[in-house]
Amino acid sequence: MPRVSVEQLAARRARILDGARACFARHGYEGATVRRLEQAVGLSRGAIFHHFRDKEALFLAVAEQDTERMADIVAEQGLVQVMRELLAAPEELQAGWAGTFLEIARRGRTDPGFREHWRRSADALTAATRQRLRRQAAAGTVRADVDEAVLARFLELVLEGLVSHLAMDLPVGELGSVLDLVEGSVRVPQGTREGDGVLSARPGRTA
Amino acid sequence: MPRVSVEQLAARRARILDGARACFARHGYEGATVRRLEQAVGLSRGAIFHHFRDKEALFLAVAEQDTERMADIVAEQGLVQVMRELLAAPEELQAGWAGTFLEIARRGRTDPGFREHWRRSADALTAATRQRLRRQAAAGTVRADVDEAVLARFLELVLEGLVSHLAMDLPVGELGSVLDLVEGSVRVPQGTREGDGVLSARPGRTA
Repeated sequence: MPRVSVEQLAARRARILDGARACFARHGYEGATVRRLEQAVGLSRGAIFHHFRDKEALFLAVAEQDTERMADIVAEQGLVQVMRELLAAPEELQAGWAGTFLEIARRGRTDPGFREHWRRSADALTAATRQRLRRQAAAGTVRADVDEAVLARFLELVLEGLVSHLAMDLPVGELGSVLDLVEGSVRVPQGTREGDGVLSARPGRTA
Repeated sequence: MPRVSVEQLAARRARILDGARACFARHGYEGATVRRLEQAVGLSRGAIFHHFRDKEALFLAVAEQDTERMADIVAEQGLVQVMRELLAAPEELQAGWAGTFLEIARRGRTDPGFREHWRRSADALTAATRQRLRRQAAAGTVRADVDEAVLARFLELVLEGLVSHLAMDLPVGELGSVLDLVEGSVRVPQGTREGDGVLSARPGRTA
């Protein structure tokens, strides 16, 4: 194997992860054979498994990268924004995310290692979500009458539903409006009178 | 095979479906071998496949029965109630529902027949949900400022998330409170003042 620089190694790793993600999304974990992974990545099995111990390690690295990206967006813009971007993404990207998630859900049912990994990822996402909710509650934009833990779990449950929905390739018709409703449900309620559209500033609560 | 009455046939069919549901939930579609199905049902393969053409037909019959039960509860008590009962159900029942759903989601990604079936089931559930929302809007208990189609899709998305969550055996901690929040999000908003807990009666809208 020729010697490569640190940058080349990182670029190669990224390329493997991108190709593997597409391959897992399309064929599922079991269906993503080494031959198909080679084709999707455009590198030999020797080059691929120089970077990742085995197929399971490669899959978990893909999932971990997805979760890190999501946690970054959550910290900056919130979990609803993650969902909006997922909804606006091209179909192949949707299929990639949804496919990874569905594969984890399925394998997690019978494989404790997978489940443990998913719990850790889910915990990282929950932490980012709760941190953001807490900041927004302090700023008076998120409702304070419902526990932060409940709001976070609610948003996560909608995300799980959205990903499952996209994985099935079901119609996305009203989903943009559904996300508006979801966002409205965690924000400080607007006055019920017509035309009262200004968010009221309230002292935040630190749950 | 001995001759049996109509009642006995129906009872045998029900027994097969119950055993098969548990078997599919535990082993997944591929893992539910004919031998395992025999053990779970307590009947020979001959007896089982006298009633159902093949494993796929058996699985789809299980899924169809689940959806019918859900649509019945939805029509009477609403989709949130379906979710509450699912949450309160013993673990094995949760695993059964969630397992079936997850299996459909996974196979539906690659198998158009499965996807088509699931869409039909999902449509029946949507119809029941919308009918109930319309009745409640007319009675003034469901909010009229959001389209009925959006409210229905919102509830379905939460259901999909809940089932996915249960399938993964993730902690159910706050989910009861999350369902309170979900229910509150589709109902006519209560006054924002403290102690104003009475639902206001508003003229309903037929979307």
